[in-house]
Amino acid sequence: MLKDGSSTSARGFRAGAVAAGIKASGNPDLGMWASEAPCVAVATFTQNSFPAAPVILSRDRLRTHPTAHAVVFNAGNANACNGSTGLDDAREMSELAAQALGIAPELILVASTGIIGHRLPMDLVRTGIPRIQLSPDGGHAAALAIMTTDTRPKECAVSLEIDGREVRIGAMTKGVGMIHPNMATMLAFIGTDARLEPRFAATALKHAVDRTFNMTTVDGDTSTNDSCFLLANGLSGAPTLVGGSAKAERFVVALEAVCTDLARKMAADGEGASKLLQVDVTGAASEADARAAARAVVGSSLVKAALHGEDPNWGRVFAAVGNSAARVDTTRAALWIGSIQVARDGGGTGVSKDEARAQMHASEVTMRVDLGLGSASARAWGCDLTEAYVVENSAYST
Amino acid sequence: MLKDGSSTSARGFRAGAVAAGIKASGNPDLGMWASEAPCVAVATFTQNSFPAAPVILSRDRLRTHPTAHAVVFNAGNANACNGSTGLDDAREMSELAAQALGIAPELILVASTGIIGHRLPMDLVRTGIPRIQLSPDGGHAAALAIMTTDTRPKECAVSLEIDGREVRIGAMTKGVGMIHPNMATMLAFIGTDARLEPRFAATALKHAVDRTFNMTTVDGDTSTNDSCFLLANGLSGAPTLVGGSAKAERFVVALEAVCTDLARKMAADGEGASKLLQVDVTGAASEADARAAARAVVGSSLVKAALHGEDPNWGRVFAAVGNSAARVDTTRAALWIGSIQVARDGGGTGVSKDEARAQMHASEVTMRVDLGLGSASARAWGCDLTEAYVVENSAYST
Repeated sequence: MLKDGSSTSARGFRAGAVAAGIKASGNPDLGMWASEAPCVAVATFTQNSFPAAPVILSRDRLRTHPTAHAVVFNAGNANACNGSTGLDDAREMSELAAQALGIAPELILVASTGIIGHRLPMDLVRTGIPRIQLSPDGGHAAALAIMTTDTRPKECAVSLEIDGREVRIGAMTKGVGMIHPNMATMLAFIGTDARLEPRFAATALKHAVDRTFNMTTVDGDTSTNDSCFLLANGLSGAPTLVGGSAKAERFVVALEAVCTDLARKMAADGEGASKLLQVDVTGAASEADARAAARAVVGSSLVKAALHGEDPNWGRVFAAVGNSAARVDTTRAALWIGSIQVARDGGGTGVSKDEARAQMHASEVTMRVDLGLGSASARAWGCDLTEAYVVENSAYST
Repeated sequence: MLKDGSSTSARGFRAGAVAAGIKASGNPDLGMWASEAPCVAVATFTQNSFPAAPVILSRDRLRTHPTAHAVVFNAGNANACNGSTGLDDAREMSELAAQALGIAPELILVASTGIIGHRLPMDLVRTGIPRIQLSPDGGHAAALAIMTTDTRPKECAVSLEIDGREVRIGAMTKGVGMIHPNMATMLAFIGTDARLEPRFAATALKHAVDRTFNMTTVDGDTSTNDSCFLLANGLSGAPTLVGGSAKAERFVVALEAVCTDLARKMAADGEGASKLLQVDVTGAASEADARAAARAVVGSSLVKAALHGEDPNWGRVFAAVGNSAARVDTTRAALWIGSIQVARDGGGTGVSKDEARAQMHASEVTMRVDLGLGSASARAWGCDLTEAYVVENSAYST
C-alpha cells in the first residue's frame, strides 16, 4: 500500500478539478481524470433499470471499444432520470472534455453523481471544463471533487513488482448514501500503469468488484449512477498481463486489495454512520449462499440499529440470514460478535449481555456467522443506522 | 365494516388474555383465541429460514389436518432461535391450552412474538394459561395482549350476506417492526362463522394475504414469527363456500377488505412512523412487475426518509423502481405525488417543489407510478423512516 496514494499514483495519470457552481456549497464539483497514453478500459455499472445518462453513454462507448483516454466527472447532479435531454447533456460534456484534452470524444467516459431528476446545469459545465488544470498530483483534488455527502475523500494506491518492473494501481471512490452496489459502487476510478489484455482486465475488475464494492451496503438502495472504471495505460513497461498466469494472479490480488480498502472506507463513512460493520459468513453450502447471507446481515435495518445501540441482539442477525436465499439449518448456525461466541446450534450460548456488548464498543465491529453446512465463505461491509442518517436524508434533497 | 369489530365478532369466537409477566411492562401478554366449534383452519407463515418454534409447530399441525379449535399466543418473547428446546416449549404451551379448554393438543395452534433468541419463561406460561378467561367480547383484550412495540391495537370486522344468512369475519393483527411480510404478517388472527371448503379457504387466504399483508413493509426485515391464521367455524348456518361461485367471490372480497384495513393500520403504526405511504403502480407489463415495483418504493430507505421530510424527491422513487425486478422504459415512466404529476416520460414535469411538497403534508401520502408499458397494477403500503425508528431499535432490545 503506497503512502498518500491516489487515483494519479500510477505513471501517466493526471487529474484536476474546479468549483463550477454545481454543488450549492461552492466546493469543487467538476473534474477530469486522464491518462497521458490511451488505455485499455473496462468498467462495471449499476444494474438499476433507470441508469443515469452518463452510465448509458459510457457503457455504450466501452461496449464498442474497450479503450479510453479520460473520464470527465461532476458531483452535485446525477444527470439521472432526465429523459433524452440527459443523454444530450452527457454527450456534450464528453465533447467539451475532448476539446480541452485534444482527443476524440469517443475516448472520453463520463460520470455524474448527486441529486436525481434535475437537469445538469450545462452553462456551468461549459464554463467549467476549460478551467480544469490537470496535474500528476491532482488525484487528491479530484477525490474531493467527486464527493457528495461523503465526509472525507477515499483514495488508495498499491505497488507490486512484475518481471522486475514496478506496477502501480491508484484509485479513488465516492459514495456514502444510496449505496447497495449491484455491479459496482457509486463512482470508482482505478488507474494502473500495468499493461492488461482487455478480457483479463474485464475479468479481474469483475472479480474484485464482486468481492468488495458489491459486498458493501449503506442503505439498501442501488444508485442510478454506479460506475467503476479501470484504466490501464501500460506505462510501467511491464509485459502484458493475460489471465491464468501467476503474475496476472498477483495483479488480481493487488486490485482486490485496493478495492477492499476503498469499500471499507465507503462503509465506514456511510451516511450518518458511527461504526463500520464487517460480517464474515463461514461454513456456507455455497459461495452464493455465503455472499447472500453476509449481504443480508449488513443490510438489515434492525441489525444496523442494534449495532448503533451496541446491543448484541443476535436474534436479529439470524433473522437477517434467514431472509436471504442462503441454505441454513436452524440447529447448526453459530455466531460470534467480535471474539465472543453468542450463539451455537441455532440457540444462545448464555454469554452475558455485557460481555457481548463490550465487543461492539469500537468504531469497527466484526461478526461471524458460521452456518455449519460447508466450506464456502464471504465477507461484507456495512455500517450502523443512526438518527443522523434520517436527518440527513429527510431534511435535505440529496 | 362492523363498528367496534374484533377477532371475536364472528359467532362462536371467544378470547381472553392475562398479564403473565412475560412483557417487562407488566401489560397483558398471554392469551387464547378459540372457537366454540371446531374450525376449518388454514394459515400462511413466514418464509424466513429461521422460523420460530410456534411457526414450525403450527405449520406441521395444519399440514396434517386443516382443522383447529384455538390459538394460544404470547407477546414479549418470540420463542425463535432457541434450538430444539424452543419446540418443546411451544408444544408444552399447546398442551397447557388444550388442558384449559378440554380439547386435544393437536387442535391448538401457537403464536409467539417479541424478542428473538431468549427462552420462553415457561414458569410464567404455566401459571398464566389457567388464569385466562375466555369471553365473546374478549377480542379487544386479546388484541392488546398481542402488541409488542405497537402503539395501538389493530382490529376490524365485516359482515356480508350469503343466501340470506349474515356471515361475519373478525380479525386482529399486531406488528410494527421487523415487518416485511413474506407470506403473512407478524401475527394475524382471522375468525369467520362462514363454512369454508378447506381448499377454498387456503386459496382465499393466500389471495388476500398476497394483496395486503405481503404488500406492506415497515423496515424490510421479514420476521421469524409471521403467522396469519384463518379459522372458519361455520356457525353462521350459511352453506359451505367452494371456490368459483359468486358467493365465494363475495367472501374473498370481504376477506381482502379486512386484511387491507389491518395492513394499513400496521403500516400507519410502523415503528417511529408519522406517515402512512400508499403506493400504486399502474401501467406495468405484468402483475408481478407491478407488485415488485410497488414494494420496492415503499421499502426504500431513501424514499421513506424523503417522505418524513416531506421532500418530493421523486428521483428516489424512480431509483427504487429501478432496483426492483420490474420491466421499465426510462422514457415512459410517470409519477404523481398526491394529485400532482411530478414526472412524465422519465423526466421531471417542472412542477414547483412547494406545490409537490404540499401533497406530502398529511399523515397519509399517496404516490402513483405509471410505467406506461401495460395494464397491470398493484398497491403497497409503508411508512416514513424517522429518528424515532432508530431510537426505538437501537436503545432497547426489541
